[in-house]
Amino acid sequence: MRNTRNPFSLATATENDRLNEIYRAAAQIICEKGYDATTMNDIAEAVGLTKAGLYHHISGKRDLLFRIMNFGMDSLEEQVIVPSREFTDPEERLKSIITNHVHLITGRSTRQGMNPVSIVLDEVGGLTPAQRRKINQRRRDYFDLIRSVLQELKDHDRLRDVDVTAAAFNVLAMVLWLARWYKPDGRLSPDEVAEQVLKTAFGGLVRG
Amino acid sequence: MRNTRNPFSLATATENDRLNEIYRAAAQIICEKGYDATTMNDIAEAVGLTKAGLYHHISGKRDLLFRIMNFGMDSLEEQVIVPSREFTDPEERLKSIITNHVHLITGRSTRQGMNPVSIVLDEVGGLTPAQRRKINQRRRDYFDLIRSVLQELKDHDRLRDVDVTAAAFNVLAMVLWLARWYKPDGRLSPDEVAEQVLKTAFGGLVRG
Repeated sequence: MRNTRNPFSLATATENDRLNEIYRAAAQIICEKGYDATTMNDIAEAVGLTKAGLYHHISGKRDLLFRIMNFGMDSLEEQVIVPSREFTDPEERLKSIITNHVHLITGRSTRQGMNPVSIVLDEVGGLTPAQRRKINQRRRDYFDLIRSVLQELKDHDRLRDVDVTAAAFNVLAMVLWLARWYKPDGRLSPDEVAEQVLKTAFGGLVRG
Repeated sequence: MRNTRNPFSLATATENDRLNEIYRAAAQIICEKGYDATTMNDIAEAVGLTKAGLYHHISGKRDLLFRIMNFGMDSLEEQVIVPSREFTDPEERLKSIITNHVHLITGRSTRQGMNPVSIVLDEVGGLTPAQRRKINQRRRDYFDLIRSVLQELKDHDRLRDVDVTAAAFNVLAMVLWLARWYKPDGRLSPDEVAEQVLKTAFGGLVRG
């Protein structure tokens, strides 16, 4: 009976779509139970697969964790990093990065938000050293992108008197923290949340 | 032999100091290994106690987690919340909250920073439901304090056109994210880091 309701048995769903759905569902459970406490059984159950069915896609829990993180970083690459290259003006590029990253987290541009996937990206302790280096490098590259945009603003005397590295961490902090407080059914829409982060990052909170 | 080097055998150390050192050391290990993977043995070893010695202070791992979180919230209360009450002007109060919270995390005003303790405060999944309610309530009270200061600024038309709830989350994000990026041996001193967070939160990054 289970298979008739299996969301992964749709003929139109590609293998990739199936995997992405597994990653999202697994990320959700890992956020709720913690990585160590989550079993492959929990995940199989959540995605409507038998344990054997899940192992057909994924070789184990650590493999799954690494795949979820790469899925998160791939989504960031496609939906945030690549589109930002369209803008030559650094201020426009920074706006594009913040807006698209907020939309990635709030799920404005996708069926579901990436909150759980974003949060699971902190679970680097569960990776092998080699996997950890790869994920940390991808995170570092993203940080460097934001830092370089701020540096470009500074070079053109368009940045206030702030340290570019600290400023890059502060921008990232506001965007990534969203994954911990944004509620899809809350008062603020994804567009309003993006606007709030932009306003604070660009103009600050207090009238001068 | 071990006991002669036991840092907790100093006659001057009060029971409270001993416990606080245990909480700091345990938080450090939990950050490195993850809460679920950390054993009472790991913690006993790190603080130079036998497992029996550790159980003399702490009844178990969950008890320890709850105590670390309360230690973190007690420190926040003493070093951030209480001192902020000295300021009647909301802008000065917000500055005091941000500065003191940054100093709590970077360890400017204490021997060691609270980074690991701050990070462990996210491990609410390891608590009983009753413990989790207590910790979440203390966190919520702190959030409400920041939000109320921003609301006061807004009421006096001293806040830019931002949503006070989103603004409160953005302030907290920058401060709490510090625990994940600030390096005590890095280029920026605790005072400089506090200045950077203040500048971004108050004035933003980009020249108007």
